[in-house]
Amino acid sequence: MIIFTNKVAETLDEIVAKKAPSSVFVLVDKNTEALVLPLLQSQSATIENAEVIVTPVGDASKNLDSLSRIWQTLADKGATRHSLLINLGGGVVSDIGGFAAATFKRGMSFINVPTTLLGAVDAAVGGKTGINFNNLKNQIGVFRIADYVIISSVFFNTLTGQELRSGYAEMIKHSLLKSKSAFRETLSRYPDEIGPDEMLRLLEDSVLIKKKIVDEDPEESGMRRLLNLGHTVGHAFESLSLMRRSPLAHGYAVAYGLLTELVLSNRILSFPSSEISRLAIYINNVYPAFYFDCDDYPELIRIMTADKKNKSPEQINFTLLHDIGHPALDCYASHEQIHEALDITRDLLGI
Amino acid sequence: MIIFTNKVAETLDEIVAKKAPSSVFVLVDKNTEALVLPLLQSQSATIENAEVIVTPVGDASKNLDSLSRIWQTLADKGATRHSLLINLGGGVVSDIGGFAAATFKRGMSFINVPTTLLGAVDAAVGGKTGINFNNLKNQIGVFRIADYVIISSVFFNTLTGQELRSGYAEMIKHSLLKSKSAFRETLSRYPDEIGPDEMLRLLEDSVLIKKKIVDEDPEESGMRRLLNLGHTVGHAFESLSLMRRSPLAHGYAVAYGLLTELVLSNRILSFPSSEISRLAIYINNVYPAFYFDCDDYPELIRIMTADKKNKSPEQINFTLLHDIGHPALDCYASHEQIHEALDITRDLLGI
Repeated sequence: MIIFTNKVAETLDEIVAKKAPSSVFVLVDKNTEALVLPLLQSQSATIENAEVIVTPVGDASKNLDSLSRIWQTLADKGATRHSLLINLGGGVVSDIGGFAAATFKRGMSFINVPTTLLGAVDAAVGGKTGINFNNLKNQIGVFRIADYVIISSVFFNTLTGQELRSGYAEMIKHSLLKSKSAFRETLSRYPDEIGPDEMLRLLEDSVLIKKKIVDEDPEESGMRRLLNLGHTVGHAFESLSLMRRSPLAHGYAVAYGLLTELVLSNRILSFPSSEISRLAIYINNVYPAFYFDCDDYPELIRIMTADKKNKSPEQINFTLLHDIGHPALDCYASHEQIHEALDITRDLLGI
Repeated sequence: MIIFTNKVAETLDEIVAKKAPSSVFVLVDKNTEALVLPLLQSQSATIENAEVIVTPVGDASKNLDSLSRIWQTLADKGATRHSLLINLGGGVVSDIGGFAAATFKRGMSFINVPTTLLGAVDAAVGGKTGINFNNLKNQIGVFRIADYVIISSVFFNTLTGQELRSGYAEMIKHSLLKSKSAFRETLSRYPDEIGPDEMLRLLEDSVLIKKKIVDEDPEESGMRRLLNLGHTVGHAFESLSLMRRSPLAHGYAVAYGLLTELVLSNRILSFPSSEISRLAIYINNVYPAFYFDCDDYPELIRIMTADKKNKSPEQINFTLLHDIGHPALDCYASHEQIHEALDITRDLLGI
C-alpha cells in the first residue's frame, strides 16, 4: 500500500501499532543516519525503539558484501520472520533492504520510507529489490512489494540540487508515458524550485502512473517494461560511468538515456522531432553534460546486450514511443541505429 | 507442476520443447555429475546441450560462497531471465539452485529433478529455496515454486543405504500426519528393500500429502507448519552435528527429532505412548544412534530458540500430534519439558 503524506512519524506509529511486529529494525545509510534518523527518532516511538542498521552510501555499495552484513545483523539481533524492517533512505537503501527482508528467513515484512525524490518516485515503489553483481546493476534480486510505502516530501530539504534533478528525470519519464500535457507540465518546472506541498501533489500524480502499470504486471512479463523507457541506454551510461569510477547520478543517466531513446523512437517509430528538441533544451538547462565519444560505443552496446530485459544476447530490447503517451514494447534497434542515435545525442548535448 | 514418472529424459525434452527457454543450464554436484549426468546426457537432447554448472557436495556447502559462484557462472555464460535452470541432484542442489534461479535477474525458470529419495519426498517440492547462513540452516532464501518437479525413482540405485534411510524419515513424517494405516504401512518396509516401481507409487502417496498442505499455505503462515513435525528438534540435532563437524544426514536428524517430538506430544497432548514405542523400535532398527548428552541441552535449546518459525525468541514453537493424523500447530514446551523429552529420547535410543 502506498501512502502519500507529510506526517511520516504518525503514519509509521499507526502502521506498527496495527501490524504488531515481534521486533523493528530501521535500515539507514550514513546520510540518512545523520540527517533524517534523529528527526524521526524524536517524533516516532517506533523509530526511537527500533534497532538501527547502517549500510554504506552509494550504488557501488549495493553489493553482496553489504547485503551479507545486513543479514548478519538481523540474525545477531534476533530478528524473526515476524519482525519488520523499515528502509529509511534512497533507492540504494530500499533496494538492498527490500532484498534483505525478502530473503531473511524466506521473507519478513518491510516498509519503505524514501527520503530522496528518486526513491519516492521510482525505487521505493513497485517491488523491485536487489543488488548489483558482476559489475552489472540489479543482477540479483526478487520482486517483492513492500508492505507499505510512505511517500512524503518532508525530507527533501536534506537533498542536494543534484539529487533533486536526478529524481526528476524519472518524473519526466512518467510524463512521457502519460500525455503531452503531463510532459509539458513537468518541463515547465525546475526541480530545485518546487515547494513541499506542490511536490507531494506532483509525486502523487507521477507515482500513480507507475503504480497503475506495475499493478497490471508486477513481475515484468509485459506491460511493466513500459517503465524501461530511457533505461536501456540510461543503464549503459550509468554502468560506463561506474567503470570509469566517476559514477553518474541515476537520473542523469536516465535523462540522457531518454534523449537517445527518443532519437531511436524518431528513427524507428517516427516520434516527432519537435518533442526531442523540447527535451534536449530542458536537459541542457538542468543536467550538466556527461562526456562520451564513439570509442565508448562498443562498451555501451556490450552493456545493453547484457541487460536483463533481453530474451537473447543477440537482440537489444527497447521500449520506445510512437508519440508522447503512445509507447511501444519490444522494439529492436540494430547496432548501426544505436550508433547513429548516440551520435545525434552527442550533437544535442553539444559533446 | 509435479510429474511422477520413471521416463525422465523424455519428460524433460517435452517440457523444454514446450517452454522454449533462451538457454538451458543444468546444476549438478560432484556426485550427480559423475553418477547421473552422463546417463541423462545420452538420453536427453536438452541435457546434452545444456551448460553444466557444478556445485560442491553437502549441506555445509549450501552457503553464500557456492551461491555466488552459481550466479557468476549464469552471468558469465549469458543467462537471461528467459533461460532455464535444471536442478539435478538432492536437496542441496534444489535448495541452492532454486534460490539462485529465483534471484538471478529477479527470477528465471527452474525445474527440479531430484536424484535422492530425500530430495524427491521433501526438498524438491513446495517452493522452499535457500542457503545456510551464520551456522543456521536455511536462514536466507525465498519461497518459489519450481516450474516443474520431475519425481522418479530411477536414480535411487546410485544412492547409499544411508541416503535411502535419510529420505525415508520424511515419508515416516508424512504418514504420521496422514493416518494410522499410512504409518503402519510405512513402518512395515525397510527403505533399502523397496523396488523402483513400488517406490514410485509410495513416493506419489507421500509427496501428495505434502503437496496438499503446501497448496493451502504456500508461504507457511499457517497450515504448512504441520510439516515442521519432527523438525524443530531435528534441525537442532542437525545443527549440533554440523558444529561438531560430523554432520548427521538430514533424515536421521528428523527421525530422532520425530521421536523427541512424539514424547513431547505425549506429555502435552496425550499422544499414545504405544505409537512412540513403535517408532522407537523402527528407529533403533534402521537409524544408528546419534550420541548426545545433557551437556548438549543448552546448545540444542539455543538452536531451537533461533528457529525461524518462532514469533519471538522466548517461545519455541512446535507442531505436535494429539494422535496419528491429528496434528496441532503452535504448541509450546517449557525448557524443562524439552529437557525431559530429550532424557526420554536418550532412554529410547539407548544412549
